[in-house]
Amino acid sequence: MNATIIGVMGPGDGATDQDVESARELGRLIAQQGWILLTGGRRSGVMHAASEGAKSAEGLTIGILPSEDGRGRSEFIDIPIVTGMGSARNNINVLSSHLLIACGNGLGTTSEIALGLKASKHVILLNAPTAWVNHFRALDQSGRLHEAGSPSEAIRLAASLLKE
Amino acid sequence: MNATIIGVMGPGDGATDQDVESARELGRLIAQQGWILLTGGRRSGVMHAASEGAKSAEGLTIGILPSEDGRGRSEFIDIPIVTGMGSARNNINVLSSHLLIACGNGLGTTSEIALGLKASKHVILLNAPTAWVNHFRALDQSGRLHEAGSPSEAIRLAASLLKE
Amino acid sequence: MNATIIGVMGPGDGATDQDVESARELGRLIAQQGWILLTGGRRSGVMHAASEGAKSAEGLTIGILPSEDGRGRSEFIDIPIVTGMGSARNNINVLSSHLLIACGNGLGTTSEIALGLKASKHVILLNAPTAWVNHFRALDQSGRLHEAGSPSEAIRLAASLLKE
Amino acid sequence: MNATIIGVMGPGDGATDQDVESARELGRLIAQQGWILLTGGRRSGVMHAASEGAKSAEGLTIGILPSEDGRGRSEFIDIPIVTGMGSARNNINVLSSHLLIACGNGLGTTSEIALGLKASKHVILLNAPTAWVNHFRALDQSGRLHEAGSPSEAIRLAASLLKE
Repeated sequence: MNATIIGVMGPGDGATDQDVESARELGRLIAQQGWILLTGGRRSGVMHAASEGAKSAEGLTIGILPSEDGRGRSEFIDIPIVTGMGSARNNINVLSSHLLIACGNGLGTTSEIALGLKASKHVILLNAPTAWVNHFRALDQSGRLHEAGSPSEAIRLAASLLKE
Repeated sequence: MNATIIGVMGPGDGATDQDVESARELGRLIAQQGWILLTGGRRSGVMHAASEGAKSAEGLTIGILPSEDGRGRSEFIDIPIVTGMGSARNNINVLSSHLLIACGNGLGTTSEIALGLKASKHVILLNAPTAWVNHFRALDQSGRLHEAGSPSEAIRLAASLLKE
Repeated sequence: MNATIIGVMGPGDGATDQDVESARELGRLIAQQGWILLTGGRRSGVMHAASEGAKSAEGLTIGILPSEDGRGRSEFIDIPIVTGMGSARNNINVLSSHLLIACGNGLGTTSEIALGLKASKHVILLNAPTAWVNHFRALDQSGRLHEAGSPSEAIRLAASLLKE
Repeated sequence: MNATIIGVMGPGDGATDQDVESARELGRLIAQQGWILLTGGRRSGVMHAASEGAKSAEGLTIGILPSEDGRGRSEFIDIPIVTGMGSARNNINVLSSHLLIACGNGLGTTSEIALGLKASKHVILLNAPTAWVNHFRALDQSGRLHEAGSPSEAIRLAASLLKE
């Protein structure tokens, strides 16, 4: 296996209904591409919905868990990586992904977008507020920050970026 | 000693002249308050200038270094903590500080503001762009995000918040 | 999938020929049990050989890499987790494994046996020196430290411990 | 300040009376040398006693805490570094120390001796069992593992090693 790992980052408890719906669709499409899904692994919000979506299409799911006993893990995670590091694990999320898709807004997600760009990863923001996009673009002129208006557009963009 | 530790977060190589000047002044004022300064510890930008300022007022300086051999450390760091964890050490920066002051904009700084608010720390943004402030305020309604227009205003605000 | 993850810990460059041979056999047997193999992920010694063995039996292999760009990864790793944390990642190795098998002696391996017992994991020592076994037994009276004389004995023991 | 940081590693709850007494003496002697003491920071066993000893001689004490809110910290710690990383913080303990002294036996201590030697630090074992010393010597032929029979002998040895 020479797998492509796509990280989907997004809020847990603070996820909106639309975030959850988009995440489920992203997970499904990622699995259909034959890619592996990586999330923060918790049974909550975007992480849980993306993993559920990937499993609905028989994909493989990795969860990088913050707790030290794996508690709070989504049942849709195949490979739970138990870090015991709290939010410091966010950096592992980004380093382990070939490409990141941010789905929804939250503090953890913000840290992952920033750490992802810092680690020279392509980051696709799905339905992000313009002010937000502009801010990150001002901080990172590498051309690695991208926008998408729908899950399917994000996946097409990801496929194209991965071919580079 | 029952020390108060203030984290000053800001860009390294990407720091502007004004960021550097403000950082030096912040460091000096922090030391004059009898507080300990904590930064990312590198010989670069805001970390270096804040540490230099603190030492000019005979303060104590901690640097949480990303490298695994302490290389790249500012000579104004008294206590180098060597993590060998790269940007994952940003979470240690925020957890170890009683209060954070962000001086300037950068990807690492953005991650630290986000992680700081997530860890329920007060975070003071110095001369931050309005769009930036608004974005974080939308993500965090705890009232822990603050703005200041000058180093001395940031220090007055910090002193007042620490009394709570 | 409700996967069982078995961590095989052992030296990299310092591995003996017998360590490498045992590791390859352990990897093969782990895959045949339908378990997932987890190692430190590097293209060296026990990590590499165990992963090769698992792939020869069509198993799935996880590697928890110390570098921040995944460099040095064994080509037999399916799921590379890139930590950028150096030896601090050893704790992730043990927390993420349901059970650990130590194959050979080394400083990293010693730290993983200790951290594994501390995290209340069962640890099987394969062909370990008696003084070594006695030392750990003196430190940990939980009954979670075990010995095995061959890879197949280690696997039988693991299977029995996992049923508890 | 161009400080020398000495790490004293040893068990928490499992510390013997002699471990605690030796640790207090080590802390006192470290402070008298003008060195900074670094420990795991908890209010327990060797960490607590060494810090108490250092404060009795007006030394400076650093504690690298495993919790994410600093809970469980010894009141003799001046500089609490809050990692939120559990036992993964053991690697920070060793990387941040110029030299390590192991006082007593425990699983965490074992991991720190191993990680310390792996990071090419000098490690002094105080009153360690012979089998233990022999095991580590077999794993590390760098000449960086040392033995001492008393706190004062450990400090004399440390002073001599730091001059190299």
